[in-house]
Amino acid sequence: MKNKINVAIIGLGQIGNFLYNEISLKKKDIELKTGKIIDIIAVSAKNKNKKRKYKIDKKIFYSNPLKIIKEKKIDILFEVIGQSDGISKKIVEQSLKNKIHVITPNKALISKHGDYLSNLAEKNKVNLEFEAAVAGGIPIIRTIKEGLATNKISKVYGILNGTCNYILTQMEKTKDSFSNVLKEAQRLGYAEPINPKLDLNGYDALAKVKILSALAFNRKISKFNTLMEGIEKIEAKDFEIVDKLKLRIKLLGITEIINNQLFERVHPCLVDKNSYIGNVNDVMNAVILDGYPVGESILQGEGAGPGPTSSALMSDLLSILRGNIKYPFGIPFKNRRKIINYNKDFYENSLYLRLEVKDKPGVLSSITKILAKNKISVRRLIQIPDNKKKTASIVIITHKCKELNSRRCIKLFKSNKNINKEPVLIRLFN
Amino acid sequence: MKNKINVAIIGLGQIGNFLYNEISLKKKDIELKTGKIIDIIAVSAKNKNKKRKYKIDKKIFYSNPLKIIKEKKIDILFEVIGQSDGISKKIVEQSLKNKIHVITPNKALISKHGDYLSNLAEKNKVNLEFEAAVAGGIPIIRTIKEGLATNKISKVYGILNGTCNYILTQMEKTKDSFSNVLKEAQRLGYAEPINPKLDLNGYDALAKVKILSALAFNRKISKFNTLMEGIEKIEAKDFEIVDKLKLRIKLLGITEIINNQLFERVHPCLVDKNSYIGNVNDVMNAVILDGYPVGESILQGEGAGPGPTSSALMSDLLSILRGNIKYPFGIPFKNRRKIINYNKDFYENSLYLRLEVKDKPGVLSSITKILAKNKISVRRLIQIPDNKKKTASIVIITHKCKELNSRRCIKLFKSNKNINKEPVLIRLFN
Repeated sequence: MKNKINVAIIGLGQIGNFLYNEISLKKKDIELKTGKIIDIIAVSAKNKNKKRKYKIDKKIFYSNPLKIIKEKKIDILFEVIGQSDGISKKIVEQSLKNKIHVITPNKALISKHGDYLSNLAEKNKVNLEFEAAVAGGIPIIRTIKEGLATNKISKVYGILNGTCNYILTQMEKTKDSFSNVLKEAQRLGYAEPINPKLDLNGYDALAKVKILSALAFNRKISKFNTLMEGIEKIEAKDFEIVDKLKLRIKLLGITEIINNQLFERVHPCLVDKNSYIGNVNDVMNAVILDGYPVGESILQGEGAGPGPTSSALMSDLLSILRGNIKYPFGIPFKNRRKIINYNKDFYENSLYLRLEVKDKPGVLSSITKILAKNKISVRRLIQIPDNKKKTASIVIITHKCKELNSRRCIKLFKSNKNINKEPVLIRLFN
Repeated sequence: MKNKINVAIIGLGQIGNFLYNEISLKKKDIELKTGKIIDIIAVSAKNKNKKRKYKIDKKIFYSNPLKIIKEKKIDILFEVIGQSDGISKKIVEQSLKNKIHVITPNKALISKHGDYLSNLAEKNKVNLEFEAAVAGGIPIIRTIKEGLATNKISKVYGILNGTCNYILTQMEKTKDSFSNVLKEAQRLGYAEPINPKLDLNGYDALAKVKILSALAFNRKISKFNTLMEGIEKIEAKDFEIVDKLKLRIKLLGITEIINNQLFERVHPCLVDKNSYIGNVNDVMNAVILDGYPVGESILQGEGAGPGPTSSALMSDLLSILRGNIKYPFGIPFKNRRKIINYNKDFYENSLYLRLEVKDKPGVLSSITKILAKNKISVRRLIQIPDNKKKTASIVIITHKCKELNSRRCIKLFKSNKNINKEPVLIRLFN
């Protein structure tokens, strides 16, 4: 690698703009650590004249990022737009084909096209680095690929979405409603202002889970439609109830190998208040790995925002500058086999069920009958009457039962006229 | 680097023996990830015929490890003996001079001779890797050098000694004495059977702190005689008392930059029971970093034992096999400046003091007089009389006071005839 390295940044939103400033500030430090002198010679974004926190050099601005590749000799390109397809995919594809190293925090792109793009990178002998795609500032990808390189990893799980974790933490603290807390999160910049859905419904966390699985188990990225549930249905009432049970609600992303099959999932979980994972709060992320021979490893840090994301992007940059040409997923593309997916119907869990019912004779008996019919046995039952409204909340903690049975049960509850609202189901984490 | 790599392992104790087996088992995995075929072609230890868990090939056994370097073409050497000087230093020195990459978990060696040896490695363009020297399976060194490469780190602290953490956790749980719990720890293999002193007095943790400082702040390793206290004086009684204060005792290693000066220290700390660090128990280690722009990062994992240590040694091996020739401390030797050390006398802390006194009039007044004279003001005072023995325990929680003053105070307490035993001092962590 030559000594002068030309860099392009595509996308100048909060993250791209922060990165632009970081690279400018850290030029000397980078030279000291790697012996390379880097220079940002091109940037691109939608709007040239938008007001930005850190001033950009407009002389190197391009409206069309693809033009940069044609006109300039770029060595390393940052894709910081964030689409799963469209221009994000195009620019990454074109760069790799032109033997340009690519660094991106784009989990939507990597979880969808990571196999194709990593193969492309390997063929062209350049890097495709995406440390920032999972858990922001936590160097989890480098840790799996390098720090724990020869461990046999059996399970990876954690809190992978800062928006959800912030909302759940605040709902517990304030006892306020989901929609109010969401509004506050949007005001503070912790949730997308226009469409926060992909964070809230578990999609974002699942994209990260898919990337983690591929890395931890040396497999192709799974395309399987697995268990994905978000936090939108959880109400203030649930926090009051689980608090008394010494439990806490967390949205977890989990991936593990069960009988040589891959089981990935994202859903709200009830965790012990005194557990480690139960005390990772607000926008913090955490990843826990079970490996042999290392044992349990935990990494915790800020999961999002320009600072932590830049930290990860810069670590990718230094890795490339130090000449670490590596397989994007740790092993060669051709050696990453496909994996059979575990049938989620067989997944066993204790459940927390909350049903809002009409407070009249026979209701409880009809509910327990449905449970019994579906082989779900009750470990604990709490009935909280609302005498004014003549309704009651029935909270049931079940023994372990199969996902298939719980799904059948929920379906029956939904069509039961004595149950007023859609039931709330939260799985106990074990 | 050629494709066939010759490896030597010097030292075949628990760790060296486990490593020997791991490398043999993971040859295929290593080839897949790095394209290199590795072969252990020489081993050395004190005793050829000792019974070992994993059988070694006696045909490649050498009694004198220095002979290996002369007679064989070694590419990578593992030093797993563990002395700070002697044969450990000699073999590492000789290897680096012969352009052999060295991997070692030896914190005593690195904290004492790391500067000299890293310079030697750089001159000979080989690696000196020591991921396993700090916090066992936690990839903290790689994380500082790579994962958080361009962050400005201001503070690193954590639980760095598994033996002490195990003993403190068990003393709290069982209310048993230090010496009984130590015996049990030795029986379980968590404490050195013959001389556990270097773990218990804080020396081991301080060696790790010194390595972390050099890495995090890009400085030479400090030779300064700083604050180092162990856990030997803590008694079952202290656990009973701090429990009521909702505190917990942890041995912390801390390094930070205060006014451009380096302050390293190891001593028992009182931490909040609900804090993260207060819940890292038994043999677990944890490291917490404050960096900009990444924010707070936490890494937790098993800190010792053959499995976690091997995991770290193997990550060093893969790093070398992937061709990452790097500065052992992240930046070139010549750029790592010396740093002025902070004068520990000015260090301010709230203190927990426990004095065992004669239960007679005037004693308390003489104690508070000593405190007042040394400008230490009392936040809380608890007196626990033992009517049978006509003694009492006086526990004092002070407001923040300077280290200098607390030292003077302790000296006066020691010479006070009404105080029966050496006072116990534990600093509150803030």
